[in-house]
Amino acid sequence: MGATGAVGQRLVAMLEGHPWFHLAEVVASGRSAGRLYSSAANWRLESPLPAAAGELVVKDLDQELECDLLLSALDASVAGAAEETYARAGFPVISNSRNHRMDEDVPLLIPEVNWEHAAAIPGQRHRRGFGSGFMVTNPNCSTIGLVMALKPLQDAFGVAAVQVVTMQAISGAGLDGVSAGAIQDNVIPYIGGEEEKLEAEPRKILGAFDGSEFVAAEMTVSAQCNRVPVLDGHTESVSVRLARTASQGEVEEALRGFTAEPQRLGLPSAPSRPILLSSERDRPQPRLDRNAGSGMTVVVGGVRPCPVQDWKFTVLSHNMVRGAAGAALLNAELLAAKGFITAPG
Amino acid sequence: MGATGAVGQRLVAMLEGHPWFHLAEVVASGRSAGRLYSSAANWRLESPLPAAAGELVVKDLDQELECDLLLSALDASVAGAAEETYARAGFPVISNSRNHRMDEDVPLLIPEVNWEHAAAIPGQRHRRGFGSGFMVTNPNCSTIGLVMALKPLQDAFGVAAVQVVTMQAISGAGLDGVSAGAIQDNVIPYIGGEEEKLEAEPRKILGAFDGSEFVAAEMTVSAQCNRVPVLDGHTESVSVRLARTASQGEVEEALRGFTAEPQRLGLPSAPSRPILLSSERDRPQPRLDRNAGSGMTVVVGGVRPCPVQDWKFTVLSHNMVRGAAGAALLNAELLAAKGFITAPG
Amino acid sequence: MGATGAVGQRLVAMLEGHPWFHLAEVVASGRSAGRLYSSAANWRLESPLPAAAGELVVKDLDQELECDLLLSALDASVAGAAEETYARAGFPVISNSRNHRMDEDVPLLIPEVNWEHAAAIPGQRHRRGFGSGFMVTNPNCSTIGLVMALKPLQDAFGVAAVQVVTMQAISGAGLDGVSAGAIQDNVIPYIGGEEEKLEAEPRKILGAFDGSEFVAAEMTVSAQCNRVPVLDGHTESVSVRLARTASQGEVEEALRGFTAEPQRLGLPSAPSRPILLSSERDRPQPRLDRNAGSGMTVVVGGVRPCPVQDWKFTVLSHNMVRGAAGAALLNAELLAAKGFITAPG
Amino acid sequence: MGATGAVGQRLVAMLEGHPWFHLAEVVASGRSAGRLYSSAANWRLESPLPAAAGELVVKDLDQELECDLLLSALDASVAGAAEETYARAGFPVISNSRNHRMDEDVPLLIPEVNWEHAAAIPGQRHRRGFGSGFMVTNPNCSTIGLVMALKPLQDAFGVAAVQVVTMQAISGAGLDGVSAGAIQDNVIPYIGGEEEKLEAEPRKILGAFDGSEFVAAEMTVSAQCNRVPVLDGHTESVSVRLARTASQGEVEEALRGFTAEPQRLGLPSAPSRPILLSSERDRPQPRLDRNAGSGMTVVVGGVRPCPVQDWKFTVLSHNMVRGAAGAALLNAELLAAKGFITAPG
Repeated sequence: MGATGAVGQRLVAMLEGHPWFHLAEVVASGRSAGRLYSSAANWRLESPLPAAAGELVVKDLDQELECDLLLSALDASVAGAAEETYARAGFPVISNSRNHRMDEDVPLLIPEVNWEHAAAIPGQRHRRGFGSGFMVTNPNCSTIGLVMALKPLQDAFGVAAVQVVTMQAISGAGLDGVSAGAIQDNVIPYIGGEEEKLEAEPRKILGAFDGSEFVAAEMTVSAQCNRVPVLDGHTESVSVRLARTASQGEVEEALRGFTAEPQRLGLPSAPSRPILLSSERDRPQPRLDRNAGSGMTVVVGGVRPCPVQDWKFTVLSHNMVRGAAGAALLNAELLAAKGFITAPG
Repeated sequence: MGATGAVGQRLVAMLEGHPWFHLAEVVASGRSAGRLYSSAANWRLESPLPAAAGELVVKDLDQELECDLLLSALDASVAGAAEETYARAGFPVISNSRNHRMDEDVPLLIPEVNWEHAAAIPGQRHRRGFGSGFMVTNPNCSTIGLVMALKPLQDAFGVAAVQVVTMQAISGAGLDGVSAGAIQDNVIPYIGGEEEKLEAEPRKILGAFDGSEFVAAEMTVSAQCNRVPVLDGHTESVSVRLARTASQGEVEEALRGFTAEPQRLGLPSAPSRPILLSSERDRPQPRLDRNAGSGMTVVVGGVRPCPVQDWKFTVLSHNMVRGAAGAALLNAELLAAKGFITAPG
Repeated sequence: MGATGAVGQRLVAMLEGHPWFHLAEVVASGRSAGRLYSSAANWRLESPLPAAAGELVVKDLDQELECDLLLSALDASVAGAAEETYARAGFPVISNSRNHRMDEDVPLLIPEVNWEHAAAIPGQRHRRGFGSGFMVTNPNCSTIGLVMALKPLQDAFGVAAVQVVTMQAISGAGLDGVSAGAIQDNVIPYIGGEEEKLEAEPRKILGAFDGSEFVAAEMTVSAQCNRVPVLDGHTESVSVRLARTASQGEVEEALRGFTAEPQRLGLPSAPSRPILLSSERDRPQPRLDRNAGSGMTVVVGGVRPCPVQDWKFTVLSHNMVRGAAGAALLNAELLAAKGFITAPG
Repeated sequence: MGATGAVGQRLVAMLEGHPWFHLAEVVASGRSAGRLYSSAANWRLESPLPAAAGELVVKDLDQELECDLLLSALDASVAGAAEETYARAGFPVISNSRNHRMDEDVPLLIPEVNWEHAAAIPGQRHRRGFGSGFMVTNPNCSTIGLVMALKPLQDAFGVAAVQVVTMQAISGAGLDGVSAGAIQDNVIPYIGGEEEKLEAEPRKILGAFDGSEFVAAEMTVSAQCNRVPVLDGHTESVSVRLARTASQGEVEEALRGFTAEPQRLGLPSAPSRPILLSSERDRPQPRLDRNAGSGMTVVVGGVRPCPVQDWKFTVLSHNMVRGAAGAALLNAELLAAKGFITAPG
């Protein structure tokens, strides 16, 4: 759903040759409906449009779908109601949209960080009167890289406070979301709604699900979000205050050694290393590092003491893969591996 | 001195038509010496090379100079010794180079912020055995914008701690300092030596001169420096912890109302408003705002509460004008107005 | 008219302080109508929005206007009918839009090239039943630079054939006409309708008005149009076949010495030199040369023999100034100087 | 040889896992010699430095080498003498450098276009007194794309004249060959020596080897070369005059159906389609199309009539792969397949 947009195109590309999932339907807004996907999508990726996908007819949001699972990259203007309608109709809905992320009964899931939050699904079904359907969301593209880097620090030392300044790629704004006349030779120090998401989502994700509700992590996050003339890859300058004292070696070791449930389960889209700690002081850089682990690895570098808080470092993640399409797909794989999604036959 | 480089060219351009100063000599490293400036300088500014400057013969560092004042944009590899030699020979040396900035007897001067530090000049002469010569420096290009924005906050509320993440323009690295293959579609999260300067210089500048020595301000600064694909203009995401509580209106009013000695003196290169507080949430932007006040005004925007410290905002300054050539020139004007520089006749 | 768009904003900026004309009204499409210009225009120029212009209320296309002259930068979707309506209502309409350019009774005017075509205005009035109103157009932004460079060659040697490959700036597509995701790190070898205009318009402009109709120049033009990631300034690689043999010195002398009616009349927006012949082999370059003559001078460089035709060279013109807003304004000045436009009093 | 430069790095990357060749030695200029390749090379590719290559010690130009074949990406300042010395010492030298390209006894080879020119090798050995060694070169990066597109037209219709305007990527100037301050937001209409190569090389390549010497094709080429802010991929606007009349369908069919010796031989680096004819009017575009066929396919689009000559079209080739490293490697594969290179055992 939302198959013609930037995230939707990435999803279509990533599903090509997927070992577990098969692209059965493409859904998009009214203008595209009824046309062949090859004609409706203004395909922008370097990799060619998969032939089978190109021959699918785009369905409208109110048409019947034949599939076992919905991956949603719908625009926020329509995602809220549409996703709930489909979940009520029995579909598992794995969404990249922001609408239900902070709902009290909807997991905001990163498989490496809080897969246990999937346990909220039964309660969600009960509360909303869903049958077999449900909704699971993935975080905002700028949240995922940050939270991935915070998780091993939280586990090892506790994280009390975070300051993050983002330098976000233009693709985060959608296919034609930023005009060249606005961003070339420029930095735009504002992205609507972004700082609020980046200050709220990490607390939910790094918090606990206590069996009945989500308990936010006790952590303060301050975010400043900038758009920079980079095609893909969000770079973040981060400083953290830890709950316990740690040496630089301990901080680096925690980051370097991080591995999690998707790696243990061998999920198809899980990178072998969820975090790559760069040893070069001038890395990570978006153009050189965004495709690490096929875009699913978060690259961290420049760990050094912070005179104001405790530690400073740089985080990079591919906003369209780890931060959007890959995030939804990995969530789908995790939910399938855990038995929340099953094929009918 | 250093007249063929990026900062040198800006100085030559800014001296064209200057009401007080006249470009008498151009000095540069060995390769350029003996050639016409028009041929030695690979002129890169949009404004044409001033005709009179083009006809000057470039002198080497060891040649005799006929002038009353030296503006230095020498490379740090030679600036240290050369500047001291010229000061000893009787010249006032106003330098953009980093070598003597943190010397205990050399003012690190921004006329709007700490012009009183010029009072250290007599002691410097005495200590180093200079006659009428002396050395005064201006700060690093990323320091100036930050300190200009901190000054009114320090005066009104006290500043206890500062976190700053820079997004610096490529011109800060010199005429050909960053290759297009390195920076296009990219962010480089490291600039050698920059964070150290940005953490140390503000404390000296915002500190006091007590009649015999500089006393650093009691303030902690944490800096993270990034290079971005912007031609001119350093953007900085700043958060501050104040010594006293202040409302957003008070913070904004302090910034908006700031004026200082150069404005009172009417120095030729002083902008009418040293700080421009933008009312639009997505400003300042380097391409749109770097030329405010002919490049001498620092533009601040997006003042808002910081969940971790007290206040967040964005600062922009033209790194080649306010941050380099204009900084040296304004220092020269201030020192002339205060009687430290006098024409022989 | 069309005051909120990219060309409209340039016109508003250029009219600030104009010695002959005064901005009396701003007209734009329905969405903007009724709002203050300062709020309706998403001002994108470095120079600040002129205060008086910001306080004008934007009028809709069907409202009554109080002014002596209309400068139109309307979108082509509405310009055709609207401009004719206003001309019929008695207004001189000087348009940057493409709709009436090739009309058989409408001058396609560049004051330096074919100001004599203004003589078609009386016939236009008669043919269309206009009273005192009329329509005059300026060429497409990629046409103007080329034709300016061809004019002195045509006068001196005759021009038989032209091959031109353009590298056009993104601002030519309007305020948000090209998305960063489409053009960054890229070249787009197609601009809809552009090649057709660039192949047809020069023949009309460089042709004659014989007292009753326009007679196209006998000249063949072949155009290939590319969009490149440049903010402003269209660069064109040109090769020409001349009607008569000429030496390189003669070709360069013809270009260098070119001056025309606007210079003789001293029109306010006329540059002192309509063509600047650069002596450096690697010029013109859009970033360094687009503002020559305040954006009204066309810069030519690299004149050298062409093995296939006769001569090759590079042409640069500021697409938003000489190629659009300045073109319309200079036409207005020319028509005022020639008595086609008069103030009522 | 020249292993640390931009082309050398590409060669090292392409040799990783090559089915026929094994990277045995890395040679570079004096500064790098004696260091590990991982430390000497400032690795800039997205793909990681192959581990085995990183552990090789860089050899100097005068050291003994243990290998069967030399691939040279040496700087032109040293390539001329060094390559001849190695050939004289018995090595087949496949070079990307310009020095010997136009030598009367050295093949300038594109396997898809003129593999028969390899027949000049025995005569070269005889003339220069070489034993088993020899020299073969590949063309300039901007030549290859053009010649690949001209070849099927020459075969089918004959090509009489060519006008080509290039928009060349910055990587063509080497790792740090173009500064960001020079090319960002800019076009540079001059590349030293480039037009001369692009006007001369196609005539040799598309000419014949008559058993004793190369006979240049009877074809006139006019070139205009521009640098644009694109990372990789040279775009060329081409117009051609054919010797025989052809319809647009015939021209497109000739391009679309082109296949050649490397495809018949199944050379490892040969793309399945040497030319891809795009059906979309706004293609090829460097960012979207440069990696077609792993960077070895030349993409052509926009075939349309030219009012001055016969046909216009756009050509795109990856300057670092098809235009440099891949060109040398494919030449090596062709020469191995044809028996000119043999392993000792």
